[in-house]
Amino acid sequence: MIEIERKFLVSNDSFIEQAFVKNKISQGYLSSVPERTVRVRIKGDVGFLTIKGASSKSGLSRYEWEKEISLNDAENLLLLCEPGVIEKTRYEVISGNHTFEIDVFYGDNKGLIIAEIELTAEMEYFELPDWIGAEVTGDVKYYNSFLSQNPFKNW
Amino acid sequence: MIEIERKFLVSNDSFIEQAFVKNKISQGYLSSVPERTVRVRIKGDVGFLTIKGASSKSGLSRYEWEKEISLNDAENLLLLCEPGVIEKTRYEVISGNHTFEIDVFYGDNKGLIIAEIELTAEMEYFELPDWIGAEVTGDVKYYNSFLSQNPFKNW
Repeated sequence: MIEIERKFLVSNDSFIEQAFVKNKISQGYLSSVPERTVRVRIKGDVGFLTIKGASSKSGLSRYEWEKEISLNDAENLLLLCEPGVIEKTRYEVISGNHTFEIDVFYGDNKGLIIAEIELTAEMEYFELPDWIGAEVTGDVKYYNSFLSQNPFKNW
Repeated sequence: MIEIERKFLVSNDSFIEQAFVKNKISQGYLSSVPERTVRVRIKGDVGFLTIKGASSKSGLSRYEWEKEISLNDAENLLLLCEPGVIEKTRYEVISGNHTFEIDVFYGDNKGLIIAEIELTAEMEYFELPDWIGAEVTGDVKYYNSFLSQNPFKNW
């Protein structure tokens, strides 16, 4: 399917008290090439394998294929990944009819907080909470696949 | 799981009349790096996603993870793959207690025929049919992932 999303920096941590879900995420990349990203993720105690294609010209849309896999398979596949596993906590916050996913990064990406919202159309309206900062949609620098190879501490 | 296999060139085409299965295979690579190969395959009308790790020192064993996926998903994922999709016909031939898979390549790899046998232990005995040629087990040059980027016609 085609995934449409917009991505923002976060200006303060007041989103934490609004969150209704919180999960620890570890993820690595079998391929961090933007045209064919292959990601292994453990979210809570569930594994996922996700493949993404290149972004559309607008930077908002991207082909995405995802399958749930066993925790054991995900742990084995993480061992094969490129160096640079990403560790973060994901908070989910409802805003109007949408849900924001806010990732607080650790390790070499400590200090970085990114909020994402998934849309069903590129022009879809959504409310911006007051903790939302600058938009970074389509900026490859903020792709997790890029961060795994060029972490925030080196910027 | 760990896959143990040995690989041989094929000296003549008498294996064809011994084959009990024949399938057309198209496959591409989301990553052709030997340490983390990600392969998309269509075999007959079934799709597969396969991830392989680096070979063991002997060259015989390799971590392999494989899941069947829909034909439609496989077709979409093939479009994301690196240039160099491999086309081949796979014949399966029984030899004693084992099955040989013999791949006859087309396109840029025309002229190449490779036979593989899967074993349950590195030292396992098996019979060598008279159409088997030189062993090429562990030779990265004969990996399909390598052939997709460095086809036989360029050797």
